[in-house]
Amino acid sequence: MMTDKYYALFEEQQKDRGINIEKVKSKIKQLKVETPSWGFGDSGTRFKVFEQEGVPRDPFEKFEDAAQVHKFTGTSPSVAIHIPWDKVDDYKALKSHAESLDLSIGAVNPNLFQDNDYKFGSVTNVDKSIRQKATDHLLECVDIAKEVDSKIVSLWFADGTNYPGQADFRQRKKWMQECLQTMYDKMDSDMRMLIEYKFFEPAFYHTDLADWGMAFNMANKLGPKAEVLVDTGHHPQATNIEHIVAYLLDEKRLGGFHFNSRKYADDDLIVAAHNPHEIYLILQQIVAAEEDSDQGVVSTAGNIAYMLDQCHNVEPKIPAMIRSILNVQNLYAKACLVNLEELKEAQEKQDVLRAEQAVREAYECDVTPLLQAVREEMGAAVDPMKAYQESGYAEKILTRGKGGASW
Amino acid sequence: MMTDKYYALFEEQQKDRGINIEKVKSKIKQLKVETPSWGFGDSGTRFKVFEQEGVPRDPFEKFEDAAQVHKFTGTSPSVAIHIPWDKVDDYKALKSHAESLDLSIGAVNPNLFQDNDYKFGSVTNVDKSIRQKATDHLLECVDIAKEVDSKIVSLWFADGTNYPGQADFRQRKKWMQECLQTMYDKMDSDMRMLIEYKFFEPAFYHTDLADWGMAFNMANKLGPKAEVLVDTGHHPQATNIEHIVAYLLDEKRLGGFHFNSRKYADDDLIVAAHNPHEIYLILQQIVAAEEDSDQGVVSTAGNIAYMLDQCHNVEPKIPAMIRSILNVQNLYAKACLVNLEELKEAQEKQDVLRAEQAVREAYECDVTPLLQAVREEMGAAVDPMKAYQESGYAEKILTRGKGGASW
Amino acid sequence: MMTDKYYALFEEQQKDRGINIEKVKSKIKQLKVETPSWGFGDSGTRFKVFEQEGVPRDPFEKFEDAAQVHKFTGTSPSVAIHIPWDKVDDYKALKSHAESLDLSIGAVNPNLFQDNDYKFGSVTNVDKSIRQKATDHLLECVDIAKEVDSKIVSLWFADGTNYPGQADFRQRKKWMQECLQTMYDKMDSDMRMLIEYKFFEPAFYHTDLADWGMAFNMANKLGPKAEVLVDTGHHPQATNIEHIVAYLLDEKRLGGFHFNSRKYADDDLIVAAHNPHEIYLILQQIVAAEEDSDQGVVSTAGNIAYMLDQCHNVEPKIPAMIRSILNVQNLYAKACLVNLEELKEAQEKQDVLRAEQAVREAYECDVTPLLQAVREEMGAAVDPMKAYQESGYAEKILTRGKGGASW
Amino acid sequence: MMTDKYYALFEEQQKDRGINIEKVKSKIKQLKVETPSWGFGDSGTRFKVFEQEGVPRDPFEKFEDAAQVHKFTGTSPSVAIHIPWDKVDDYKALKSHAESLDLSIGAVNPNLFQDNDYKFGSVTNVDKSIRQKATDHLLECVDIAKEVDSKIVSLWFADGTNYPGQADFRQRKKWMQECLQTMYDKMDSDMRMLIEYKFFEPAFYHTDLADWGMAFNMANKLGPKAEVLVDTGHHPQATNIEHIVAYLLDEKRLGGFHFNSRKYADDDLIVAAHNPHEIYLILQQIVAAEEDSDQGVVSTAGNIAYMLDQCHNVEPKIPAMIRSILNVQNLYAKACLVNLEELKEAQEKQDVLRAEQAVREAYECDVTPLLQAVREEMGAAVDPMKAYQESGYAEKILTRGKGGASW
Repeated sequence: MMTDKYYALFEEQQKDRGINIEKVKSKIKQLKVETPSWGFGDSGTRFKVFEQEGVPRDPFEKFEDAAQVHKFTGTSPSVAIHIPWDKVDDYKALKSHAESLDLSIGAVNPNLFQDNDYKFGSVTNVDKSIRQKATDHLLECVDIAKEVDSKIVSLWFADGTNYPGQADFRQRKKWMQECLQTMYDKMDSDMRMLIEYKFFEPAFYHTDLADWGMAFNMANKLGPKAEVLVDTGHHPQATNIEHIVAYLLDEKRLGGFHFNSRKYADDDLIVAAHNPHEIYLILQQIVAAEEDSDQGVVSTAGNIAYMLDQCHNVEPKIPAMIRSILNVQNLYAKACLVNLEELKEAQEKQDVLRAEQAVREAYECDVTPLLQAVREEMGAAVDPMKAYQESGYAEKILTRGKGGASW
Repeated sequence: MMTDKYYALFEEQQKDRGINIEKVKSKIKQLKVETPSWGFGDSGTRFKVFEQEGVPRDPFEKFEDAAQVHKFTGTSPSVAIHIPWDKVDDYKALKSHAESLDLSIGAVNPNLFQDNDYKFGSVTNVDKSIRQKATDHLLECVDIAKEVDSKIVSLWFADGTNYPGQADFRQRKKWMQECLQTMYDKMDSDMRMLIEYKFFEPAFYHTDLADWGMAFNMANKLGPKAEVLVDTGHHPQATNIEHIVAYLLDEKRLGGFHFNSRKYADDDLIVAAHNPHEIYLILQQIVAAEEDSDQGVVSTAGNIAYMLDQCHNVEPKIPAMIRSILNVQNLYAKACLVNLEELKEAQEKQDVLRAEQAVREAYECDVTPLLQAVREEMGAAVDPMKAYQESGYAEKILTRGKGGASW
Repeated sequence: MMTDKYYALFEEQQKDRGINIEKVKSKIKQLKVETPSWGFGDSGTRFKVFEQEGVPRDPFEKFEDAAQVHKFTGTSPSVAIHIPWDKVDDYKALKSHAESLDLSIGAVNPNLFQDNDYKFGSVTNVDKSIRQKATDHLLECVDIAKEVDSKIVSLWFADGTNYPGQADFRQRKKWMQECLQTMYDKMDSDMRMLIEYKFFEPAFYHTDLADWGMAFNMANKLGPKAEVLVDTGHHPQATNIEHIVAYLLDEKRLGGFHFNSRKYADDDLIVAAHNPHEIYLILQQIVAAEEDSDQGVVSTAGNIAYMLDQCHNVEPKIPAMIRSILNVQNLYAKACLVNLEELKEAQEKQDVLRAEQAVREAYECDVTPLLQAVREEMGAAVDPMKAYQESGYAEKILTRGKGGASW
Repeated sequence: MMTDKYYALFEEQQKDRGINIEKVKSKIKQLKVETPSWGFGDSGTRFKVFEQEGVPRDPFEKFEDAAQVHKFTGTSPSVAIHIPWDKVDDYKALKSHAESLDLSIGAVNPNLFQDNDYKFGSVTNVDKSIRQKATDHLLECVDIAKEVDSKIVSLWFADGTNYPGQADFRQRKKWMQECLQTMYDKMDSDMRMLIEYKFFEPAFYHTDLADWGMAFNMANKLGPKAEVLVDTGHHPQATNIEHIVAYLLDEKRLGGFHFNSRKYADDDLIVAAHNPHEIYLILQQIVAAEEDSDQGVVSTAGNIAYMLDQCHNVEPKIPAMIRSILNVQNLYAKACLVNLEELKEAQEKQDVLRAEQAVREAYECDVTPLLQAVREEMGAAVDPMKAYQESGYAEKILTRGKGGASW
């Protein structure tokens, strides 16, 4: 079979490059990427939400769709939930439902931006009762996390302002810290609070947590259970995200990722559809830090929560998720093929071209045969996209009709 | 009265600067800025639309609100409409309603982005029947314009793609030209087609009319009735918009503006709330071109359609419009205070600091007394914002409740 | 005299607005902005340095030029020096020279980017001996600062890389910290280390101190003598700098500014020549924090080192500096005119338009009469630019010829 | 031999994908990328030029270095020259020297930015005698082109301003057109004028040819011998360059490229070192247009002048050029592997994911075996970088010492 021939050649080549292919395979198998329940519902832009047929009508159906992604990729065993979008009367039932689908419930995401009260901020609102309401919701989410055995509460705040003078930056900073401290104290010692930052949107003048530095400083003040979450679409143009990632790894504050891609603002497109090299370079920093970790250098690299956070406005949602998982896996596999010793040697000799070559060479490898082999060993589909498309699931869910859940 | 004292001093100063204050007053009186009907309805971001109490429930009420803006500023006598948001059975009735409020109907704006058929494009759609549908809508808008005696149809296309490969750029370019040609041919000789461009959003990979060059080339191909519309929020960061404006003036293809401000993307905030200097420099180019025009250099500077295009997501809509009109008027007044002869002389001597000084000096003038005098002479409110707030209109419309029109 | 009439009216208006004009005048008199010695020498782009006639030929002449700026503005009594550009055999002599000109020596700036050894980094170089050399230079600068009685050493690092893989981010981070710790330990307890960050240039892939978060974290680790320096041109497009400033004020880590303006990258143009509103909003945050400080809220707002850092590539250097000092003073004066109580009240009521109005209103004031009065009281020139131009100094220095110092 | 095995498999795979591999090989062989003479000399940033040992000391040595690049890659048979950097007494001798090295002289590049007279502009200078001087230099370059049998004169203008008010945009526009018209009229009918645009730098407020639209409009006005040159580093962040390329192809005005890469501004780094996907997408548009051309759709796709324009500030220059040529060849090869029929079918069905897949799939192919086979057939080195490094040339030129030519 061609696949075998191809893989044999691939393995031969990598051995020649000095790569321990078994270790690489083992690492790829360990890579897990969480899907977001809201990525299966309808989404759009401020101009229009184009409703798709067959989108899930409730949290249970979202898990059913997510199960398809994991079934064929073997790489997305958990699903992030968003409260109140995924609010149910019985979280134990939701958990059981997930488990029956071979899934677990991942990060719990509070929603502090869609209630009318939050028009001028949630945990930063000048109105104390609204800050209290927001804090109560955070505590509710900690409780839900405990109930569903999730260890992660993932925080994104839309809080910010649109006009100069609209609010007092320093005062809001203090209020946010107070609210998060209350939440932090309620968390079990093995729970993690992931703090996300964003350059702009929906606030258009200032955003209270505008960059990694603000999220990092907050996490530092709160304590070891708090870490930073990096959404790849939340930076100014040209930002060197892999540098931030390496920085946070060194500070042991890198908690997780929201993967997606963008060309312009926070476009929330399929991860690696635009500038895949950027995601590769991020993952390459992580693989290097994992290696240091193995050698006793302490790092959080092995404990990162990888999550997708995307909006599939014009493409069908389940295959878009499969595509995204495959893209991350593809680039992670490439990152594992960098010969780190060779890279280190070139760096020590200040040999710029050879160092760049070491990183580029792995990127240029076609890892298809490697991933096919890994998937086969994991019991996943060798070609997950094709397998999904042939499964008939897409046709089956059309009976749900239009007008399902939207995030 | 303090105002008089202040104005007398202002006039004295400007005379000392060599400014013909009567000419300036006359120019300010001629400045008219159209409000958009949709700016009075609810709007928001993809995350949330915060509904406001009292927003108009139909096109007629939108005109009533717009009439308030004109009543107090004397500077916004026309209102742009958006079809089908402002679709009515009887356009003559809408026109009469407008006139009864001392308003006229301004630019007619087709909507080619909210019908489900336009998910993958309107005039660029690969499906010929959808292109036909889009063209029919354009023709309908030409008919409406004729019916309401508007001379302007203003075109913005959301058409674009989200992913590499999604569509054929060159093919779509040809299709768009075909459709617009059909529309162009239907227009009366005294009508104008304004073609807007946008860097991105809602499309996140490519936008068919992505910059002024594409809009300009289209207008060139169509003929003299077609011109370019500049929306101040539709450019890449750092773009020198005043340069583009001067360029289009020189090419006699500057048709109009959609004014608003932004710090990040197309934030659609109150014009000049962010970086007011930018709007000033744009208007200064226009004033300079008007002067050339007066001296026989042909230019379209005197024929520009000034329009607002804003979304008031967190602030009350009518006062936000008043604020916007006042901001444009304020900056236009300053632009009229540049001593163009002095500027020209400094430019000819390559005296950078003196040339910059000539432009900055006028910007730093406080034109409050000038505008108060002009408003008094025009019969508008001396302090339009205060007058509106004391009028009781804001309280009156609360009876409309929430859930009015949204754009 | 017109000036008096104008000022009397101005004072009347400000009293009506509830402004304590004597306090404002006192604050403006306290504002001091340091000029950089290198801003008086030739500079350019990578494409060309256009040499100007009359630029200073040595550090002593740079101080003579700087003295002109202070003589007429009364607002720039200190001059930053750059080692080795301003290296002299006898620093005491330089200090005496400065004092004889009514100047003092301000921040001492090490140069770690022009020695051939620093091609691949200074304090982050993989070569330990080069890191040692860089550290030795830092210590030399601490010594020079002590010798000239300067309390500030201001650090900017060009360190970074151009290509993926070129260097190990995490390793370099540790090396930089080690070097700075050595320097920190050598500083007297009343000395301050200002740590500057920069988005990019001259490094084009990663910069070791790329943003305020990295500089802030470094300062935090070093201790209370270390603070962050904000260069207004060193951020990604659209960054809300005033938010960062307020944030650092709240953290008591805002050490100083390098003022300049830019439209694109780090253009190093005359401060406030582009988007003056941005500098205004920054200063407004500082004035608000000063007020809190007066009311017992601890803050570093009163202790900020304001410095210019500009390159005058096409304009004459001394008047460009005067222009810059005047621009900062102008915008600071406006910032002092915000009615902070009114602003606070509007913020508490979430009245967006009124809050924005409170900040905009002060910006729109013409502070010319106020500054003229202040300058008269300070014994500076009422119109510093005119006074300089009439002084004959510009003509006098032409005898120096071309080919003087370049930075 | 492994290479053969690998290639055999590659060919098999591509046949399965429906690719005509012989056609692809033929296309790759036709790809030629010109090197710039100035890319072999020393360059740097405004902060520092780090001189390298062994850089060429005159134009003849630059051609010798360029010959190495072509010798091993077989893909860079021509070299662009820059006047006066490459000014020689006897151009015929330079031409003969080039031919003796198996090279030809490519585009002639005038320099209108390093003479002191051009401080405030060249063809846009308010001083007529300077415009004349600039025009004379353009004509001189046309003459040089004729003398060396080059058909291309490639124009980049640094012309622009740093401050508002500094110059009259509209007047400068007219002056530039006049000068270019004079030059255009002097060109033979088979010569081409390539007009480059740039977003900013060295001008920091406005650049006279700031974007493709301005260059395109100029070319349109001049006539068919004038075309647009796209430098990949000369756009605002996030610009969709491949869209512009397709647009210009459709307008038959795409004359050529200056390839390089950047993360921030015009960083002039090795092409495809950053975001290689972008260059791939550009080349994919061209390959698609070439295909249309083959099928009778007129296009300039087959006539594009591909050139490098890079600065190798920290890396050795000859291997950096080889790396760059290989990168372009690599991405062009991938672009040839898109199954255009499949792509077209997916586009017609609006199947977003399948269309994206068609473009991505080719990008993910490892074309190493293909390029090795092509190089062998062309008589170039199978591994050009290794062959160069083993050739001893790098060591040989060290005798030139430091301080050679800088651009």
